[in-house]
Amino acid sequence: MPDRKFVLGVDFGTESGRALLVDVDTGEEVGTEVYPYADGVIDRSLNGRPLPPDWALQNPEDYLRTLNRTVPAVLAASGVSAEQVVGVGIDFTACTMLPTDAAGTPLCAKPDWKDNPHAWVKLWKHHAAQPEADKINEIARNRGEAWLQRYGGKYSSEWFFSKVWQIFDEAPEVYYAADRLLEAADWIVWQMTGKETRNLCTAGYKAIWDKQSGFVSSEFLRVLDSALERVVDQKMMRNVSPLGECAGGLTREMAALTRLRPGLPVAVANVDAHASVPAAGIAEPGKLLMIMGTSICHMLLGTASQPVPGMCGVVEDGILPGFFGYEAGQSGAGDILAWFVRTFCPEAGAAVHEELEARAARLKPGESGLLALDWWNGNRSVLVDTHLSGLLLGATLETTPVEIYRALIESIAFGTRTIIENFDHYGIPVNELYACGGMAEKNTLLMQIFADVTGRPIKLARSSQSSALGAAMFGAVAAGNKGGGYDAIYDAIARMGGTRELVYTPNQASHQVYTTLFKEYTDLHDYFGREANEVMKRLRAVKAAQRVG
Amino acid sequence: MPDRKFVLGVDFGTESGRALLVDVDTGEEVGTEVYPYADGVIDRSLNGRPLPPDWALQNPEDYLRTLNRTVPAVLAASGVSAEQVVGVGIDFTACTMLPTDAAGTPLCAKPDWKDNPHAWVKLWKHHAAQPEADKINEIARNRGEAWLQRYGGKYSSEWFFSKVWQIFDEAPEVYYAADRLLEAADWIVWQMTGKETRNLCTAGYKAIWDKQSGFVSSEFLRVLDSALERVVDQKMMRNVSPLGECAGGLTREMAALTRLRPGLPVAVANVDAHASVPAAGIAEPGKLLMIMGTSICHMLLGTASQPVPGMCGVVEDGILPGFFGYEAGQSGAGDILAWFVRTFCPEAGAAVHEELEARAARLKPGESGLLALDWWNGNRSVLVDTHLSGLLLGATLETTPVEIYRALIESIAFGTRTIIENFDHYGIPVNELYACGGMAEKNTLLMQIFADVTGRPIKLARSSQSSALGAAMFGAVAAGNKGGGYDAIYDAIARMGGTRELVYTPNQASHQVYTTLFKEYTDLHDYFGREANEVMKRLRAVKAAQRVG
Repeated sequence: MPDRKFVLGVDFGTESGRALLVDVDTGEEVGTEVYPYADGVIDRSLNGRPLPPDWALQNPEDYLRTLNRTVPAVLAASGVSAEQVVGVGIDFTACTMLPTDAAGTPLCAKPDWKDNPHAWVKLWKHHAAQPEADKINEIARNRGEAWLQRYGGKYSSEWFFSKVWQIFDEAPEVYYAADRLLEAADWIVWQMTGKETRNLCTAGYKAIWDKQSGFVSSEFLRVLDSALERVVDQKMMRNVSPLGECAGGLTREMAALTRLRPGLPVAVANVDAHASVPAAGIAEPGKLLMIMGTSICHMLLGTASQPVPGMCGVVEDGILPGFFGYEAGQSGAGDILAWFVRTFCPEAGAAVHEELEARAARLKPGESGLLALDWWNGNRSVLVDTHLSGLLLGATLETTPVEIYRALIESIAFGTRTIIENFDHYGIPVNELYACGGMAEKNTLLMQIFADVTGRPIKLARSSQSSALGAAMFGAVAAGNKGGGYDAIYDAIARMGGTRELVYTPNQASHQVYTTLFKEYTDLHDYFGREANEVMKRLRAVKAAQRVG
Repeated sequence: MPDRKFVLGVDFGTESGRALLVDVDTGEEVGTEVYPYADGVIDRSLNGRPLPPDWALQNPEDYLRTLNRTVPAVLAASGVSAEQVVGVGIDFTACTMLPTDAAGTPLCAKPDWKDNPHAWVKLWKHHAAQPEADKINEIARNRGEAWLQRYGGKYSSEWFFSKVWQIFDEAPEVYYAADRLLEAADWIVWQMTGKETRNLCTAGYKAIWDKQSGFVSSEFLRVLDSALERVVDQKMMRNVSPLGECAGGLTREMAALTRLRPGLPVAVANVDAHASVPAAGIAEPGKLLMIMGTSICHMLLGTASQPVPGMCGVVEDGILPGFFGYEAGQSGAGDILAWFVRTFCPEAGAAVHEELEARAARLKPGESGLLALDWWNGNRSVLVDTHLSGLLLGATLETTPVEIYRALIESIAFGTRTIIENFDHYGIPVNELYACGGMAEKNTLLMQIFADVTGRPIKLARSSQSSALGAAMFGAVAAGNKGGGYDAIYDAIARMGGTRELVYTPNQASHQVYTTLFKEYTDLHDYFGREANEVMKRLRAVKAAQRVG
């Protein structure tokens, strides 16, 4: 294929990294290679010493190994030469952050620091900064910080300043030794280009930055701790780069490591969920993309910044330039179904979800008499409360496992409908649903139930690797028209993004029954989730006390 | 054992009948024999024709076969001669009723009627008379019938006039052909003695009879249907015999059938749960007996008739003479745990409950974070609502099957505590708990949790066959002092009833945690059970509509 041009997208996930090689004219995916991280998620012990609960670290060396193992392999396997590759983009989990020295060397890579867990990469699902997040929220509320509305009213323990503050609280020596504090997404781009940049997406969604007002004020940071007052100037960067901008050319060292050509345009970093939107062919408001896996991310474009309680964030240009990118989420989805199987069908084989779905598909909506609240892993949107828990109601002596399985699927769909109605209610219309991710591709009953519950058709993103494809598309934009790519992401969307022919169309009879049940779901949701009866939190308190005692 | 004297108790259960031979001086059980009914519970088809849902019939021939198969066998096996047996008593499930001709021949035993399901015995758990029960309750409420209070405010579809009215509604030809309508308990005594009697226990608890006012008024029955106005006089008997009275002597035919001696005193009939009270050695108020199996019956003595909402009934002399016998109940208990095992451990062996208990015993109260409402089979006391359903709350991705199993046990204990507090609240004190039945004997963790949740010690009835022992004790009273028995049931209790040495003593630390959790249970109980949120009923309605549609 000597005439064709390609772009490369590299997706840095939770357990592995992946390179995807894409035809820049058609979006055709000509090759993909995966590298399972050697050190994976480090959440039990580090160098032989146990880690506290809720910790989750990674080794940045795994990110470099991903480039080294996957990029040359995908080029070789697809017969594409380095000269045919016109650009590269990356996407990453977020907020996944680390401390480095002035040269960008991770502290954890230095012998003096390697045994200090705070010197390592804090993965997105590192949840040990909850005390810091609680204080950030309390102080922000008390000060009436306007930015809090942009995060649906609550700043997460997963996000940048919660993690930074935890480092300072628990390991000030690491904080002071860190010349730089940055997203791993930006770190890998720095490694590739030799040039430090800060991407707009993580700055906006995780680090309290906004196109209009820049970063959170020094006054606010000083109230957290006087030592943090100048953290942005001292250890971050005020210059934030929009998505699709060229961060720089690939260094000689990285060209050698990846077998790509030196000087190859590298796009500024992006986040996995956000990069999936252009990959699904979405270029305008009203189309909600669901990235469906263990949990669900909901991505939506709007034409104005509108406070929507319970969303994860709204960032101008945060998904696509010219729009306000809204993000919401469900903290439990595939993991709830996995819990069901692990708990009640431990002996079942690999096809257990398919078998359960086939049997659950024979039930009509409401036929089981069951109703569940999908809070096994807490609730992200719209209640933003990790201390809520799962509920199952309506069980009788005739209730079967298959009925429970279906009720769990329905509850997850009701959770998404709650998010959609919340967006609608606050003036961000949702007309069509798009979906990508493993669950969207495999679980056909679940997808039909989502269509029936929400009453909206659902299209599937064409690519099975939407994040990597989106990253590659931004790589094409970094290359620009003259460099063999595109000047605008919208041109890349038109050529490279899109959906499949299969559309899940809502069954109107089922939708009517589900609307009746959704009313019941909403009543329970508000009763248990909005302080009428805080039994779930009180039970958690008893549980915590009994586990300690 | 030529010097010893014995009494015989025959227990007619749901699936089988049992004869128990007991030493009249010591209560020692010297032999027992069981006969599994050949026709069992007839709930699917009758003579090849399918039965509607909720039907449950029996064949009275099985009751005669019980006498024939078990009594001679127990005599032979224990080496006791007919002359050593001084009396016999029976206990029965109730309300289990049938139509007969004037001679006591069941209509179902006649060729003309054998294919009409209404000619057969309607077992206690025949639930197809719900429409009639609903109308009885509505009419009674509208008329302000004072007797309704004696049944906790609600007359059950299981009870005598609901079933009588169903016969009249659906098969008036059976109703008119029936010279007699009576409890199977009274029918078997009639067969044994050749003399029709009506026992006080079933008259009081099932057929709206009271020592002060007799049967429900003809005016009320006429409002149901003019044809029913004189049903008591036409097809029943106004003369009600107190428990322990001698119904008559054993007929020659029955003596031949049972190998007992002709003329042997036969006590008037009794009900299984009620007969268990004297067997457990209870002779005074304040001691609540729990008969624990598939469901739980709660029996309690009081010194006055006090309206207690949600109880099953209060009957003067209904359990023991001189006291008001209170009955309450939980419609789900062992069957909820059986549901759990059937649903989630279908491959498990016979010892599955023991294994689950052993693992659940390692958990502390509240440690699971789970809370359940024990309504898998509806709620009998104190809500009297068959349309409620089970609830499980507090589930997380870490929740295990063992935690759910323990939460179900705890919920059943909370249900009993609700009943106890309800009795206490309405002036019927409960100081000590007694237990009998399979679950009380086998499930040690469950019993400890009952003690911890209720904060009361629990004693176990000495006999594993409390119903049959109680029936035998009333047989001794029928014989009287002169006949080798006792003149009063209280003398029999002192000699023949009692408890084991094992006492379940509440752990005060656990009781405190459970009191915290019980507050949460009560909030959910009242929210879902007392009309604040009738979601369970609405889900049932949707389910019913979808199953039909």
